[in-house]
Amino acid sequence: MDYKSAGVDIEHGNKVKSNIQNIAKRSIRPEVLGKIGGFGGLFKLDTSKYKNPVLVSSTDGVGSKLKLAFEYDGHNSVAQDLVNHCVNDIIVTGAEPLFFLDYIGMNKLDENIFNQLIEGFSDACAANNCALIGGETAQLPDLYKENEYDLSGTIVGVVEQDKILDGSTVVEDDVIIGLYSSGLHTNGYTLAQKALSSQLIDRYINELTEIHISYYKPFNLCRNYIKAAAHITGGGLIDNIPRTLPPQYRAVINKSSWKKPNIFKQIQEAGNISDEEMYKVFNMGIGMTFIVSKDDADDCVDKLNTHCYESTIIGAIKTKNTDSVVLV
Amino acid sequence: MDYKSAGVDIEHGNKVKSNIQNIAKRSIRPEVLGKIGGFGGLFKLDTSKYKNPVLVSSTDGVGSKLKLAFEYDGHNSVAQDLVNHCVNDIIVTGAEPLFFLDYIGMNKLDENIFNQLIEGFSDACAANNCALIGGETAQLPDLYKENEYDLSGTIVGVVEQDKILDGSTVVEDDVIIGLYSSGLHTNGYTLAQKALSSQLIDRYINELTEIHISYYKPFNLCRNYIKAAAHITGGGLIDNIPRTLPPQYRAVINKSSWKKPNIFKQIQEAGNISDEEMYKVFNMGIGMTFIVSKDDADDCVDKLNTHCYESTIIGAIKTKNTDSVVLV
Repeated sequence: MDYKSAGVDIEHGNKVKSNIQNIAKRSIRPEVLGKIGGFGGLFKLDTSKYKNPVLVSSTDGVGSKLKLAFEYDGHNSVAQDLVNHCVNDIIVTGAEPLFFLDYIGMNKLDENIFNQLIEGFSDACAANNCALIGGETAQLPDLYKENEYDLSGTIVGVVEQDKILDGSTVVEDDVIIGLYSSGLHTNGYTLAQKALSSQLIDRYINELTEIHISYYKPFNLCRNYIKAAAHITGGGLIDNIPRTLPPQYRAVINKSSWKKPNIFKQIQEAGNISDEEMYKVFNMGIGMTFIVSKDDADDCVDKLNTHCYESTIIGAIKTKNTDSVVLV
Repeated sequence: MDYKSAGVDIEHGNKVKSNIQNIAKRSIRPEVLGKIGGFGGLFKLDTSKYKNPVLVSSTDGVGSKLKLAFEYDGHNSVAQDLVNHCVNDIIVTGAEPLFFLDYIGMNKLDENIFNQLIEGFSDACAANNCALIGGETAQLPDLYKENEYDLSGTIVGVVEQDKILDGSTVVEDDVIIGLYSSGLHTNGYTLAQKALSSQLIDRYINELTEIHISYYKPFNLCRNYIKAAAHITGGGLIDNIPRTLPPQYRAVINKSSWKKPNIFKQIQEAGNISDEEMYKVFNMGIGMTFIVSKDDADDCVDKLNTHCYESTIIGAIKTKNTDSVVLV
């Protein structure tokens, strides 16, 4: 008996993985020392840029959007989803992304799927000026079904301590700017896939596999205006905006202030889902919010829209009575 | 239709996850700002301790040792396995662990399993002076079977740039010290489980679920002696020692110099596995190697054994002819 006959073909694995360095170098940054494949990834922190550097990290997955990647060969795009999701999770603290590591657990190391995934990770990392510095691919034939896999990603960024965005400067009548999402991003896919028939999934597959937007560039455009930012993930606007607010304030959101992508209406109708549930599960067309002062709001929206980051004012900050978010 | 009926019970999930902070605080370090559950975990880097800090990161999983955790309720210990594996991957560069993030992908959020996992992560992090700073738990009923899950973990540490261990000071006749493993650690479990009958797995379950040793404390004991260190994972002594050597050298290992745990003999006999394959797949009883100068070797081994980290001299560095490792 040997490892190969037991289901783990190390030689094949090494051959497939030998391509990683070639692909990952698209995302390289000068701070990366050594090469991918050492025991640990090495990243030199530029201390001249930070007086009190705070490392900001986040781990995430892509949830059951994976099922669509399996069915529609969307491995590259689901890898980009993951990187962009992680980027959004740390930039809301004000952080600059530094490096990313991926985990792929799969049935067998399929060369086509693996290359698509690594290309997706690498291209999305490069687009966010973030180095793909390491990762792990595990072959687990007993755990995963054939041609299936799970993904997770971890990002590390850095922010100057006194620049951390914690919402502490938010005051009454500040304005909430909503940045449009490209669709569901990576949330609510279990419900969406239960609600939609396979014919409808097929019809709306382009909308359903739209890549999760990274808001790093629009964030940088408005960085000087932003008092708080929220990544609208699971829990929607209702759960995520309050995470960035001082406890004495609530967000008043005007539901009719932005255009909802058609896919949400399709899901709601097909699944006979209540309005309330839709707003709790999905981003409903807004992937990130910035809170800015009333005086800066128009400038900020103009700047975003001039650079093709579709956005609009969707609400304002008010003193709290009971709820921390009100949808009107 | 709602999210719960589709298979994702957010309220139950939030209830179960609400315990994380309580458990994770066992591992807290003073550099951790804010609390777990923000968009990103915040860790202040103490720049007074480092002139040119290099961040060292690694992502890993535990492979098919998971199957034993499912069958024998070993969730806490497999979580510790993962942390210790990650710790070992970065300390071989000379790094000090800073923080760790976990990913759990599972069928449904089972409170007992989840708590065992978080406790295992947290306790192992605390033992390595590493903060459990964040993570993600995904409920993926379509991907995972009932009561099954996959894990990945990411660790970030830091090392002073001119203290990075890259093996560059290794010279001929340096000595290889082997530190005993507690068994298979987290490698070769697919083969081991194919080789052993279910009766044998049952008989040797204690040996098979021994926790992967963290070598951080023994590393610190010998830090000033160590020229290169290797974490003996997949690929065994043969693949891992050369990763730490300058290309002109080879490692000559004396196979009879250490006591092999009985479990390896059981696996080899049950699966009729060749010696060569055993040394390529398993650590064969050595979980980490240090390369030190000839003059320091006895001191180093004495120090380790005095502190109950069983170790012995297993080989020496010689000029390379063809192979980079020779087992004699």
